[in-house]
Amino acid sequence: MNIIKNYQEIINSKIEKIRIQGTPNELYDPINYILNLKSKRVRPILSLLSYSLFKKDIDKITEPSIALEFFHNFTLIHDDIMDNADIRRGEDTIHKKWNNNIGILSGDLLMIFAYKMLENVEEKTFKKTFQRYNNIAVKVCEGQQYDMNFEVENEISEDDYLKMITLKTAVLIGFSLELGGLIANKEKLITDQLYVAGENFGISFQLMDDYLDVFGSAEFGKKIGGDISSNKKTYLIIKLLEKANSTDKERVLKLMNDNNEDENKIKFITDMMLKYQIDKIAKQKMDIYFDEGMKTLSSISSKKNKILELKNYFEKMRERKF
Amino acid sequence: MNIIKNYQEIINSKIEKIRIQGTPNELYDPINYILNLKSKRVRPILSLLSYSLFKKDIDKITEPSIALEFFHNFTLIHDDIMDNADIRRGEDTIHKKWNNNIGILSGDLLMIFAYKMLENVEEKTFKKTFQRYNNIAVKVCEGQQYDMNFEVENEISEDDYLKMITLKTAVLIGFSLELGGLIANKEKLITDQLYVAGENFGISFQLMDDYLDVFGSAEFGKKIGGDISSNKKTYLIIKLLEKANSTDKERVLKLMNDNNEDENKIKFITDMMLKYQIDKIAKQKMDIYFDEGMKTLSSISSKKNKILELKNYFEKMRERKF
Repeated sequence: MNIIKNYQEIINSKIEKIRIQGTPNELYDPINYILNLKSKRVRPILSLLSYSLFKKDIDKITEPSIALEFFHNFTLIHDDIMDNADIRRGEDTIHKKWNNNIGILSGDLLMIFAYKMLENVEEKTFKKTFQRYNNIAVKVCEGQQYDMNFEVENEISEDDYLKMITLKTAVLIGFSLELGGLIANKEKLITDQLYVAGENFGISFQLMDDYLDVFGSAEFGKKIGGDISSNKKTYLIIKLLEKANSTDKERVLKLMNDNNEDENKIKFITDMMLKYQIDKIAKQKMDIYFDEGMKTLSSISSKKNKILELKNYFEKMRERKF
Repeated sequence: MNIIKNYQEIINSKIEKIRIQGTPNELYDPINYILNLKSKRVRPILSLLSYSLFKKDIDKITEPSIALEFFHNFTLIHDDIMDNADIRRGEDTIHKKWNNNIGILSGDLLMIFAYKMLENVEEKTFKKTFQRYNNIAVKVCEGQQYDMNFEVENEISEDDYLKMITLKTAVLIGFSLELGGLIANKEKLITDQLYVAGENFGISFQLMDDYLDVFGSAEFGKKIGGDISSNKKTYLIIKLLEKANSTDKERVLKLMNDNNEDENKIKFITDMMLKYQIDKIAKQKMDIYFDEGMKTLSSISSKKNKILELKNYFEKMRERKF
């Protein structure tokens, strides 16, 4: 798909051109470090594809789309501190390479730079874009707090979990599509549809992440079973605890309270998931959200070939071709 | 000064009315906690006083002025984590009362809510207000990083120090005045003057903080000599190291590298400051900036009685009557 490569280059060269530079270096180096890590630029690309549904040139959407990449990276910097994560995209996280304080402050600065990317939005579309952006940003913070709360809670329902990933991940994917409509000055009906489509894809892809962590093949330097070994309460674990009989549930919970036996633990819990067909349940669930996203896209009135480009991108994302 | 009390009440009831509410509680409780700590609301009051130079009703400035209070409190939350500070305004800091992660995330959320306070700014004044706000926010982050860098640097010049406090503290005081002019839609000449006046007052008040920490009387639950005992590189210490003869300088530096002898250390370094008249030097310096602020205010064309109200407020701040 040449158009995606093209968009990636446009976004990368725009980020290069913006050049977040200044002093002291301790503050600016980490930002440039994380922005230069290998990234698919999913969110800006979605905005460009969405904007292209309505307009030909992509000049007006490029800079605002970078706001999403900056905001996303700000959340990664702070989340990695909160999760005590050492590795991001195969490289040291900022707080690991520098320290926590530098992580906090460079994250803060990157969030401000995200806002700066909205400075040149035209007056007629600015206010609603800004308001929606703020509301989305609030939700992302709420999602991260729910995620942290879940770490210390015992029983999390499927609904709770879906709400958490919606806030933490899917609303920003939804807004990535919505932003294209907002900057193209489309009516609320359409920007709402774009948001809803994106939110559904976002949920689907997060469920896929959970699935691939257990049933995927080792790639991108990720360890298979990492979520199981770290006792993360993913969709799969939540469904397993819901479906398992009381004996099996006890055994799973016991292993989850034990931080030691790693390989055995991953194997046992994976086998349990297969026994209760959690793999199939998870796949069905992600398909439901994916199909809902596709259906919503189909209902948007725009050039058919442009809708197809957007759909193709989501198909490729599902196949993890990006 | 009844007008200040009146403004404080307006601001407090506006903050009350905005009601930053939501779930999860772990995210929203800390924000309401810090906003309800005793505060003079200096920054919003400055904006109201500044706006009143040009307009009668203060409706339009109230909400944007709260952005400054929220932003300021966001920086306090994150700075307290970075500085490992346990007490703020006589109460536990957020990261102490909850934990670091909650401090990071509730700070992030409060920063977003600061931006939300700009959502209703009129279109004609919005863009330049937003751009200036972003630029100021960037500078505040830079100032905090310089401050952290200074902790591990040996020789800091007076210029370095003045640059740091300008960024960390004074630019936001400058912008508090500027915001009044921006929202009143005044021309750049005037908003620049307001900024410059505020920046000078901001530097003056930070120098006064440094001074009072050593030569003030114990109040607000602050410990006299706290900066000395924590080896903080204040204006007074920087000037002392500059003025002292090599023997005295060595003795001071030796004490600063030693974390033990507390009472003796405070007494010795305070005496050294008196010996080299650092108290007088610091007072002179803060007067220079204060007078410059006053001079700049005098040059602004506005109703004389309104300028006087603003000047009175700064005079009272100097006397620590607020």
